[in-house]
Formats: sequence, C-alpha cells, structure tokens
Amino acid sequence: MTTHQLTEETQDGFHYTVGPYFDPVLEIEPGDTVEVETEDAFEGAIETEDDLPSEVLGDYLNPQNGPIYVEGAEPGDALAITIEHIEPRGPQPRGTTCTVPHFGGLSATDRTAMLHDPLPEIVKKLEVTTEGTVWNDDITIPYEPFVGTISTSPKIDSVNALTPFKHGGNMDLPDVCPGNTIYLPVEVDGGYVYLGDCHAAQGDGELCGVALEHPTTTTITVDLIEDWELEWPRLESEDFIMSIGSVRPMEDAARAAYADLVAWMADDYGFDEMEAYMLLTQVGHVRLGNMVDPNYTIGAGIDKSYL
Amino acid sequence: MTTHQLTEETQDGFHYTVGPYFDPVLEIEPGDTVEVETEDAFEGAIETEDDLPSEVLGDYLNPQNGPIYVEGAEPGDALAITIEHIEPRGPQPRGTTCTVPHFGGLSATDRTAMLHDPLPEIVKKLEVTTEGTVWNDDITIPYEPFVGTISTSPKIDSVNALTPFKHGGNMDLPDVCPGNTIYLPVEVDGGYVYLGDCHAAQGDGELCGVALEHPTTTTITVDLIEDWELEWPRLESEDFIMSIGSVRPMEDAARAAYADLVAWMADDYGFDEMEAYMLLTQVGHVRLGNMVDPNYTIGAGIDKSYL
Amino acid sequence: MTTHQLTEETQDGFHYTVGPYFDPVLEIEPGDTVEVETEDAFEGAIETEDDLPSEVLGDYLNPQNGPIYVEGAEPGDALAITIEHIEPRGPQPRGTTCTVPHFGGLSATDRTAMLHDPLPEIVKKLEVTTEGTVWNDDITIPYEPFVGTISTSPKIDSVNALTPFKHGGNMDLPDVCPGNTIYLPVEVDGGYVYLGDCHAAQGDGELCGVALEHPTTTTITVDLIEDWELEWPRLESEDFIMSIGSVRPMEDAARAAYADLVAWMADDYGFDEMEAYMLLTQVGHVRLGNMVDPNYTIGAGIDKSYL
Amino acid sequence: MTTHQLTEETQDGFHYTVGPYFDPVLEIEPGDTVEVETEDAFEGAIETEDDLPSEVLGDYLNPQNGPIYVEGAEPGDALAITIEHIEPRGPQPRGTTCTVPHFGGLSATDRTAMLHDPLPEIVKKLEVTTEGTVWNDDITIPYEPFVGTISTSPKIDSVNALTPFKHGGNMDLPDVCPGNTIYLPVEVDGGYVYLGDCHAAQGDGELCGVALEHPTTTTITVDLIEDWELEWPRLESEDFIMSIGSVRPMEDAARAAYADLVAWMADDYGFDEMEAYMLLTQVGHVRLGNMVDPNYTIGAGIDKSYL
Repeated sequence: MTTHQLTEETQDGFHYTVGPYFDPVLEIEPGDTVEVETEDAFEGAIETEDDLPSEVLGDYLNPQNGPIYVEGAEPGDALAITIEHIEPRGPQPRGTTCTVPHFGGLSATDRTAMLHDPLPEIVKKLEVTTEGTVWNDDITIPYEPFVGTISTSPKIDSVNALTPFKHGGNMDLPDVCPGNTIYLPVEVDGGYVYLGDCHAAQGDGELCGVALEHPTTTTITVDLIEDWELEWPRLESEDFIMSIGSVRPMEDAARAAYADLVAWMADDYGFDEMEAYMLLTQVGHVRLGNMVDPNYTIGAGIDKSYL
Repeated sequence: MTTHQLTEETQDGFHYTVGPYFDPVLEIEPGDTVEVETEDAFEGAIETEDDLPSEVLGDYLNPQNGPIYVEGAEPGDALAITIEHIEPRGPQPRGTTCTVPHFGGLSATDRTAMLHDPLPEIVKKLEVTTEGTVWNDDITIPYEPFVGTISTSPKIDSVNALTPFKHGGNMDLPDVCPGNTIYLPVEVDGGYVYLGDCHAAQGDGELCGVALEHPTTTTITVDLIEDWELEWPRLESEDFIMSIGSVRPMEDAARAAYADLVAWMADDYGFDEMEAYMLLTQVGHVRLGNMVDPNYTIGAGIDKSYL
Repeated sequence: MTTHQLTEETQDGFHYTVGPYFDPVLEIEPGDTVEVETEDAFEGAIETEDDLPSEVLGDYLNPQNGPIYVEGAEPGDALAITIEHIEPRGPQPRGTTCTVPHFGGLSATDRTAMLHDPLPEIVKKLEVTTEGTVWNDDITIPYEPFVGTISTSPKIDSVNALTPFKHGGNMDLPDVCPGNTIYLPVEVDGGYVYLGDCHAAQGDGELCGVALEHPTTTTITVDLIEDWELEWPRLESEDFIMSIGSVRPMEDAARAAYADLVAWMADDYGFDEMEAYMLLTQVGHVRLGNMVDPNYTIGAGIDKSYL
Repeated sequence: MTTHQLTEETQDGFHYTVGPYFDPVLEIEPGDTVEVETEDAFEGAIETEDDLPSEVLGDYLNPQNGPIYVEGAEPGDALAITIEHIEPRGPQPRGTTCTVPHFGGLSATDRTAMLHDPLPEIVKKLEVTTEGTVWNDDITIPYEPFVGTISTSPKIDSVNALTPFKHGGNMDLPDVCPGNTIYLPVEVDGGYVYLGDCHAAQGDGELCGVALEHPTTTTITVDLIEDWELEWPRLESEDFIMSIGSVRPMEDAARAAYADLVAWMADDYGFDEMEAYMLLTQVGHVRLGNMVDPNYTIGAGIDKSYL
C-alpha cells in the first residue's frame, strides 16, 4: 500500500465539472492512500470580509482535485473510499462563510425564481483549527470536518461540481467524515475520483448554502470492490449503513435513499423487501445533507445492530 | 394544579377531524395535568395479523381525544403542552404495524398517483411493553414513545386527523416525547386540545406510513402563554428548541421550519435574522417527522448552548 | 325544473370554510337552476386603489354562497353542475386585482418561506363589462368569466375556501366556464354546494394570486348522477372531458389528474388502462389552474373525438 | 445564405451527451439553413412490436446530431433557430411509442423511487406520414411535428441528451415546431448546436415518456443575435413569445418560466416588472412540455397583442 501526495502543485489546475474528459493527475492501486490538498469552495478568492461574492467570484466554483485513476477499476465495480483524516491548512483566518445573492435555502434562486431583490450579502472570515471555528466571542463551533464533494466520473456526462447525483458530487453530507467509508460507482475505466469542498462543520441542510468552507489536507484510502453495481452512493460507519439520494423535490431524495437502502438490505443482508420496508419505518434514520444545491441530498440509514 | 382523567368512557366517542365544531369533553385550568386514554390509529380494529386494513378499516382513521377546553385561552395566545409520560395499555399483542394499499413513502398514493397495483398488504401484531417492542426473535425495538398527533383547533376549518399543519396535527415527529414541551397556537376560545396516535417507536419519515401504533395512557400538562402568536408549532427540550413545518413538497416543510426558527431566534433570543440564518447553516439540525401524510413534517432545531 | 334566486340577502352571511357544519340556505331538486349573487374574493373590501390588502382585509377571504341542499343526493352519488351564465354586477369599477404581501407565484409565501421582504403591494380597480376588462388605454382583456371556487362538502372536514382539493374548491380553473359542466362528489346528504370567487378572466396559473375578481350573478343548473363515486372533480365541455387534480407539488397535481382521466377512460369509455395511458401521451392536454393556492390545480383532458 | 446537409453519413456517429467536448460536424454562417437527418429517440433499435425496450436498448438514448459550429457566435450571444420544416423519413412503420420499465409520468422511476414492479412493457409501431399517425382503425393522430431535443453546449458541463435545462435539451415542448423560432444561449465559441428526437405529435406532458418518435429530415435556419444573454431558452411564434423553464419540482419550472418572461417583458417591451407580473396573471398561458424527464419543462407565454 502506497501513500501518495496530491498537492496543489501536482494537481496543477482544479476542475469545476466532473466527467471522463480530463486526464488523470494521479494513478493509484486499490488500497493506496492519498493525501489531498483541497482548496475551499471559492478557491481562496474570498480573503477578507470586504470581498463580496458578487464581486470576487468568477464563473467557476467548487474546485475539485482529481481525477485519480484507480488501476483495475472497471464499469460495474464500486470504489470504497475511506476518509482517514481531515486537517485545516493555510493562513488564518482560513474559514469562510457568506451569503450569495439569489442562492440559499431561504432565498429565491434561479430555480425557485421570484421577483424579490437578493438578501443582504454578508461575508464572515473565521479562525479554524482542529479545536473548532471561532464564530464570535461566545460561540466556538466544534471541528467536525467532512468532505462536501466527492465523486467518481459519470459514464459520458460531465456534471458540474456544484451538483450531487448518482456519481456522488456535491452532497454536502456531514457523514462523509473521518472514519467513514463512502461507496461510489465505477462508470469509466479507472473510476476517476474527484474531491474537494471540505467543511469544518455544517448544520443539516447547509441552510444559507455556504458552510464553514476551508482548505485542507484530506487523507483518503481507496479500495476497489469488484462487480458491485451501485445506483446511488452508499456509506458505512462503524455503527450504521446509509444510502444517499440526491434529486428534487426533497421527498424524491428521501424516496431514492430509502428505496436504495431497502435494496441493499435485501441484496446483502438477507431481508425480504417488504420486511425491510416495515422495519425501516420503525428504526430508519434520515440525514438532510443539503437543501440548496441543484439536487437536494438525503441519507437514509439503519444501525448495524438491526442487520 | 389538578390532575384530570380523560378515559375512553369520558371521551365517549373519538373525533377524526379537528376543529371548532365539537363540544369540549373536558375543561381545565392552565397548569393542569390530564391523563388521557388514547386509542391506536386504527381504533383497535386490527386485532390479528389476518385483519387486513383494506377489509377491517372504515372511513375514519386516527381517533383523537378531546377537545379539551383550557380556561382563559384566547386567540393570540399559545398553549405549552408538556408530554409527561406515555405508557402502553390494553391486552397483548397491543402493537400494530402494517402496510395499507396505496399509502406509504415507497408506494404510489392517491396524490402521487400512478398505475401500479398496490404493494402487498401485511399486518404485524407485536408485544409492546416499556421494555420495548418485540419485532422478532432477534430484534427488540426500544420503547421510545411519543405522541403522533396533537393539535389545537383551527379558527374555522376542521382539519382531518391524518393531516399535520399549522395547528399541529398528525406530525409524527418523535421529538413530541416525554420530557419535551410542544407549543401550539390558540385560534379559538379555550384552544381545544386534541391528541391521539401514540407510537411505541418510529424511524425518521415513518416510511411505510404505519409506525408501532399502540393504545396508551398519555399524561400531559397544559400551560397557557398569553400573547404569543405562533405561525407553526414549536417545541422545546432540555437541550434544544425546534420549529416544525408541515407542508408539501418536503423542501417547503424544511423552509417553513427553518424560517420560523430564524424568526424565533430573532424575536426571543436577540439574533439578527441574517446572523441566525448563517449560524443555523453551521449548527442547525433537522428531524424528518413524516414523509407519508397529506403534509410532510420537518422539525428544524438548534441547541440551546448556541442561544 | 324550477329557477331559484340566491341573493346576497337570502344568503345572509357568506362562508369562508366549506363543510357539513352549516345549515343549507336553499333546497333544490335535481335539474333545478339557481341564480347566485356572488361576491368578489375580497367581499368588496377593496373599493379604491388606496385600499391596501394588508390594511383592509380581515381574517376571512373568498366568501362562498351556499350550502345548497340537493334533494336525494347521497354519499356515492355525484353532482353535475352546469355553468349556464355569468354576468358582472355592482357599481363600477367593479373589477379588482392586486398583489398581496407574501402571496403569489413569484413571491415567497408562508409555505415557500424565505427571508425576503414582501414585494410591493399594488391595487388595480378596473371597469368590467361583458365586453371586457379595461386594463389601460391600450389593453382590454376579453370577458371570459368562470367560477373560481365551487365545491360540495367534504364528509367530516371543513376545508378553507382558499383551498382546492377532491371536493373542488378554489381550483381557479378557467374551464369552469359557461357551457361546461363540472362533476363533484357527494359526501354528505344533499351534497351541499358552495360557490363564489368568479373571475372576469385569468391566465394559466393565476400568477400573482389575484385574477380579475368581480361580483357576479352566476347561473347554474344542478343535476344528480346516482352511484358515481368520484375521487377528483371532473369536467365536460362540448369538445372534451377533463379530470382535475389539486395537490402539491405540481407534478402530483398532474399525476392525479392524468391518473383519474385514465380511470375515467377505462371505466366509461372502454379503454384498456395502458392503452389510455399511451394515447394520452400523444393527445392529452393540460390546463394549469393555479400555482398559488394551498394546493396547485391541473386539469388533464382529452378531446371527445378520441373517445 | 447557404443550405447545408447534415446526413446520417456526414454526422458519422451520434451524441448522447451535449457539451463542448466533441468536434463540430459542420460549420455554418449565421443565416444559413441546415437540413438534418435525425434519428428517432431509440436510434431505430425498436423495429417491431416484439422489440422490448428492456431487451433491445443499450446504455445510450436520444441520439443527437451536431455539434454545429456557428461562425462568430461568442459567449454572451444568443442563437435564433427557426424550425422551417419537419418531414418523416425511413421505411414504414417508422413511428414508435412504448412504455419503458420504471420510466414515465404515472410510473415509479429511479427518482420517484418506490417498491412497485414495473408497469407492463408495450411497444407500438405506427405508420407515420404528413397526413398523420395511424393509431388504430378509428384514430389517426394529426401530424403536428416538433423537435423534442435541441440545445447549444453548456460552458464546461456535458449534459445528458435526456435532460432539459438552461441550454435547451430534451424539453419535449410541442411549440418547438415549424414556423417558430427558439432562442438559445451561446456559452462556447461557435455555440455548438445539437438536435434530434423529433415527435410526430405529442400530448402535454408526454405522459408515458415516449411520444410518437420518428426519424425525420428537419430543416432549421440559424441566426446569431449578438449580446443577448439568456438565462433560459425563449421561443417566438407569429402570435406569442414564450420563456421555457426546465427544473424540478414542476412549480419551479413554472416559476422559472414566468419569472424569465417577466424579465423579457421588462427588458425588451418596456414593462414595469410588477405590471408585467399582474398582466400575466390575467393573460399568461402555460404549456406543459414534459413531466417525465430529469427536469420537467414548462413554457410560459403571452400573446404579442398585449406587448
């Protein structure tokens, strides 16, 4: 097992869409570990609280590292990516949250289009350490980092880095955190892993659309599971398994997640489908990832003690 | 402070719609406690696993106790109803879950109408004690009871007992549990409290539409808060406050809940609205009540440590 | 066949919720005609362009005439109500449209809740005759009147007059116009017909939420169809039949309408369900009633030439 | 002005995703005309009524001709593509409709995921001429052809040919028919026009997901409008203008379409935004394109007589 570095320098240019049309920046063997220098979702463009998003941001957001080519990965396989460690990097204040005009869960947007003027545009620059994020004199938010965006490549499409879907992507799901493993489908040879957009913490739904964004060194281990066709991303922690649906409206994200979990319980744990359906009614748990991205994300899980 | 009994006998007929058109079955003073004998959501009609819902259920479901008249409650006030205790009652097996044709989160319904035949109809009768619900030889589901349906009366409408909305109703939110207090609007003199539909446990979303239904003795204490106009139900535990939105599609339930929570933080805790919005982005938490009722229910909360 | 008058005077108080809890204001035989003096949706409270909705409107909107008791109508039957004629009444300018704070299709609302300030509040008072509505010097909108709200009574619930659902109600569907017949379910003895809210014209979706509201004399003929259980309202013109779904999200309104139309074609016109489904794919037509009310309304129809 | 041919042979391989990653198959000047040999949505794979979609279809659907490079087109411009003529081609029976497992408006799908078995799989092969499509002995459906899928290229993403969005794509909107002009944004040099998926007729919503698919010779004229930034596709007929929104849920498609139409009326026809909003409430019209694709499509229009 080798440990690779994917630095800003070796990355040599981030991607804002994820698909099969870029050359791999790194080739690894299954079981290898990669230490990735991720940028924040704004690629560092917001340096002070006077840098308004409407003025400093360009066309492209959510820079992704990758693609990482996994030797031997073929369509029909799955990748098992374990988040080993996330650590903030860069000069302080390295955390950023803000409101972006006509974006966010309690704002009119380009899709939920209305005639309202945008909400006020506010930027907060914040000190982030592994101790937490200093929100103000009274509040320090514990450091509970996770990977906001992680995906393999779709077969022929190239999906914007802001969009979560069957390939993973911008799920903004706090369960994609150190210690947990996310399973993603392989649609092209080598799988093509992309990742970025790490959050120092985030509430359910990522309400205003911008969590505690920060640059990190994120360490992942990538394993290959042959012949496991996934429709939606799946996740496993020490305690539970979870299926992840990303679609609109939100009830369809919940349906996709729970239906995939029923299928998982039937295929791999011997449940009758209707039995799984009825048991999840009593003990299933739901995590709202985001309610702001082009698709909303919901994770539906069950404790392993019931399996 | 008086403790009242509202037995099946004194209830003398349940209600399947909640509004101002019925006579109170009990009058209480603010601060009084009521021990309520609730029926299960099927009013006991499903006695064995051979009693199929399509055959034994009548037109009316989700029987409600009440209305309880609270002296002094006037439109513009709120009621603070603390769930003190829930205890199963009735002969074993007193727990029921089942699938109902064309109802449920992973089923075509009358609203999400499709051309599919109904899913299989399955009934499970289960032993329920305060130790838990015996699902099968391997699984016992811990007893984590809560009140599935609780409301005041709308001003002039009478809302079906199956529907959650601004008055409360069939929210199926597990946080309405012993130790917690739910706040409901007063729209008519006396408030008119209705409740029923207690669950021995439930997963997020109440996936198949029928949780662990059981008859109970539920003890509540009802307080009056004058001049507190609520748009949506709110809830308070020892650790957090929560606003509860019930509407379709599900993202609107999330929006309603979070927007009300922002308003609550602004009105009662001194937050600027945009500040509350941005803080909830980092630390808000979401509970999916139901994804099966005429309105979907989401609770959005924040730990008191941040207030 | 008798012709009855239901004047403002004999109505003696309008209703803002429709259910079984009010006494009939008129009893008629099947086949009878009723000339109904309807009020506008604001009950005339907006008299000048200075009367802002936020200042002059009270708690109750959308006044309904009725209930009208139809002799012999029993649960399981349907009423066939033909709109014979609609004529504006009252002093000029008798037409009203306006914007209402936090209401409308391109506005944040109590359900699609956001943090935006309300859009500007604007009132227009307009001359309405059978020639048209004078919008300004350049534009006169043809008089194409219809009944915005018409329903029977639900079985036990009382539904706000602003809400469309299975009983009919505030569908705001321009096809409910002179010459056409709407079919509504009978859920209580006598059926209990309520109506009001006539529009001098309306675009698809009733975008800002307020059409060309005006008081009218509306003439309807009410027939009884025994033993015809309707799930959703249906409509018939000389040229087509249409099923009407009212629910959120809007795709569910479309699904409900089309699924009911498939059932209608199967039950009454001898189609195989899948055949109807595939034919509607090629020739079905959709009318968006409203995109602003508590439920959105879609009518799905097919030309009789295909039946 | 030149007339070009884009035959199956010169196309030399169709595309199933539309983006900037393919080489142009044709370069034209603004004002030029192109006669395009389109394939049907199944690329001819369904030849008889025994060819079940689940057996004969591969991974890729909805073959697109293009990309066509338009000289001088630059980001910030728009293309005005007039549909001049559509004519069926190929051997009879050249029309195809069918049901596809877990796809369609009244079916559980991968997104509106449920536990139902798929609906029956049925294929119909149909004679199509410019006189109409022979459905059966009694029914001939008039030939009202249109282009189901037409787009420019997104800036960096490559969008599946089945998906409609801001670039156009699989809108399935019957107004994209001979005589009308669709306006699409230019996001990359040359614009990159893709098209295909012509329908011999289609009902509103394309209910089962498969219209009267047929191969055609489709003639378009492509003009360039400099410095006209479009957020959503727009359309113009002799009588009306229309904005086209494609997103989920369906109410957001309606909002996007109407909001864009308000902006269009304000920018190009001198309306105050609120005035446009209120006028559209009275005279706007809505066309439901599809209720089956990854995004639902709604066109919102207004007659030119009101502009």
